[in-house]
Amino acid sequence: MTLTKKPVNGMKDILPDEMALRSYVIGLIQDTYRTFGFSQIETPVVEHIENLLSKQGGENEQLIFKILKRGQKLDLSKPTTEDAVTDSGLRYDLTLPLSRYYSNHANELPAPFKALQIGSVFRADRPQRGRYRQFTQCDIDILGDPSDLAEIDLILATTTVLQKLDFHNFTIRINDRRLLKAMAEKAGFAPEELSEVFIIIDKLDKIGWDGVKAELLGKYPEEKVTPYLTMFEEVGSGEVGEKAKALMDEVGSPLPEIIGSVNAVKTADFTMKYDPTLVRGMSYYTGPIFEIAMDEYGGSVGGGGRYDEMIGKFTGQKTPAVGFSIGFERIIMLLMERGFVVPGASDKIAFMVEKNMPADKLASIYAEAMQLRAEGKTVDISQMKKNKKFQKQQLTDLGYTDIREFFNR
Amino acid sequence: MTLTKKPVNGMKDILPDEMALRSYVIGLIQDTYRTFGFSQIETPVVEHIENLLSKQGGENEQLIFKILKRGQKLDLSKPTTEDAVTDSGLRYDLTLPLSRYYSNHANELPAPFKALQIGSVFRADRPQRGRYRQFTQCDIDILGDPSDLAEIDLILATTTVLQKLDFHNFTIRINDRRLLKAMAEKAGFAPEELSEVFIIIDKLDKIGWDGVKAELLGKYPEEKVTPYLTMFEEVGSGEVGEKAKALMDEVGSPLPEIIGSVNAVKTADFTMKYDPTLVRGMSYYTGPIFEIAMDEYGGSVGGGGRYDEMIGKFTGQKTPAVGFSIGFERIIMLLMERGFVVPGASDKIAFMVEKNMPADKLASIYAEAMQLRAEGKTVDISQMKKNKKFQKQQLTDLGYTDIREFFNR
Repeated sequence: MTLTKKPVNGMKDILPDEMALRSYVIGLIQDTYRTFGFSQIETPVVEHIENLLSKQGGENEQLIFKILKRGQKLDLSKPTTEDAVTDSGLRYDLTLPLSRYYSNHANELPAPFKALQIGSVFRADRPQRGRYRQFTQCDIDILGDPSDLAEIDLILATTTVLQKLDFHNFTIRINDRRLLKAMAEKAGFAPEELSEVFIIIDKLDKIGWDGVKAELLGKYPEEKVTPYLTMFEEVGSGEVGEKAKALMDEVGSPLPEIIGSVNAVKTADFTMKYDPTLVRGMSYYTGPIFEIAMDEYGGSVGGGGRYDEMIGKFTGQKTPAVGFSIGFERIIMLLMERGFVVPGASDKIAFMVEKNMPADKLASIYAEAMQLRAEGKTVDISQMKKNKKFQKQQLTDLGYTDIREFFNR
Repeated sequence: MTLTKKPVNGMKDILPDEMALRSYVIGLIQDTYRTFGFSQIETPVVEHIENLLSKQGGENEQLIFKILKRGQKLDLSKPTTEDAVTDSGLRYDLTLPLSRYYSNHANELPAPFKALQIGSVFRADRPQRGRYRQFTQCDIDILGDPSDLAEIDLILATTTVLQKLDFHNFTIRINDRRLLKAMAEKAGFAPEELSEVFIIIDKLDKIGWDGVKAELLGKYPEEKVTPYLTMFEEVGSGEVGEKAKALMDEVGSPLPEIIGSVNAVKTADFTMKYDPTLVRGMSYYTGPIFEIAMDEYGGSVGGGGRYDEMIGKFTGQKTPAVGFSIGFERIIMLLMERGFVVPGASDKIAFMVEKNMPADKLASIYAEAMQLRAEGKTVDISQMKKNKKFQKQQLTDLGYTDIREFFNR
């Protein structure tokens, strides 16, 4: 029998040091979001295949781990198809299961419902440094609130977490799907062309304006492309200028209110930046969209937006919804690179106990340990080894600063 | 497009009240086990199919959710088999992945290594009340310690958690695989008969001694069965009597030391009970085995034992190992039935904000909320609805005891 030692391809074993950091960050996230009134919930990691493939997930639908049917439902005795042999798969995000959850439990939940989810998601992506096929997502969502108070609170909550983790000087880029759409339509693009146009705009960070222009011109006439690109210059970015404000009023976008309110009350050290080129991949967004950008890390370390149409696909009834996903894995990576030390580690005391300790002496050793543990201290008890020096070194490496030896005499 | 609202068959959406309890219990478990020197780790929920099917899992191997291969590795165009179309599956417990983890990382881990794992496991069992196909397991394991200090510490740690959750008057049943084996062999059963004999003994709780006797006599001659059953009377149960002690000495079982030490130092309210009929299902156990029995709940609410052979199957090198799994889901169920109230809930204040609040007033409202949140209080901000009475009732149901209204004038 051969067993395999490595984790499955693209997945990861988490060692104690990283795990201590992850637990600390999760605790801090839970505590902080709790003060904003979010309630934690959980959905199964296994989801119906018809939900996963319902076109809410964009490219992620290509990356689903599908689960084989079982028992009589499974027939492999003749040529068949993936659809015929699977009825469920692993979730690729937390938003789709949340929509199902809300539609299943709307009667038992308050309105608006403020949900916190922390859980594993799965994508069969090409494995690459720092990206794994199982990873943790951490989402807050407000369901049933059509007002921009929801966006404001999501941004304040998320940035408060980042502040508590000692992140400074980052940027919240914000845009609105309705602005993106209006600009493209004004330039003459047809509705069915929009998603392709946005995919090109979304590459701006990588290919620059010249690249965007070249790609657009490769597919569309100059009469559309030139006025379109000019419009980006006109509306500007950063502060909301006059042109931008006029466009926002025209489409009913609350960006000025959101940016104004957040700037007025924020306690964390970040900048709100209107960015007309922000696209965000997911096609389900319907209103404001936002993304956290950090100098330390090229890409986005979280983002979200309003998706007022998704829940209606389950319930048949339109339900406003907006969410913000903090980039948990990237934040953990940045904290590790920065050498972040989990605060408040307790006293760690190690008891090394010689072999064959008489019962009464052993009992008194344990009694002492239990007393210290009840006081919140960490006490390790282990048998004394022949190589005491090596054993002490290992205990020291584990953070035991107080090592006590107990001898059998 | 039809989407499905219910979770997949046999799995469960967790509502906010239950989730608050689960988070609290997880926090308490983490804190308590930390004081005993355990480090938390995590393995992927997806595991190699060859590991899952390596005969460590007993019946659970029949219950694996298998994951379909992807891309060119998958060929469904001609008749095929489950083995040919899957290469991974969802873990059915935390012990097998821990063994793989330890064998993969032994060089980076201390010896002994004290691991805490809290995670989801998956079994495609027939759905039934209170049992789900995805559920949380919570295991502590000590790897690399051959001494009975490991068993003692596991029992003290687990019972300390139960005590903190206000469980009293429970029993730790303890036995040793070597005693089980010695008794059956003395009665004349052949080595290859043992596992069947133990399966019958394991049914004692359900079918009583008469049932056990009848089943044994249906398969084995009276010359074996009668002396075997007599032996159980002779060794007795509860306190370790003279006959039992002699047998323990003969096979080198440390049960007297374990029971003695735990009784001498325990701070929780429970009884250690030597039980020669305790079997525990898993075939991988090699030494002491134990189980938590609670009057409130018929079955076991946790158990574990020593499994010194498993890790060697990965590493080729024998590594002593012992674990204790607390019955997380059953404990949550018992606490919910008991109406357990999560302690230390903070002040909850709700701000109801009328529509179209001027920017400066809204900013001062948010500033006040952010201040209260920074003090650790929970503050919900939501737009005032037409039906204020209903809105207030919902906030009250959510535990908001202080509801403040802000008007747009």
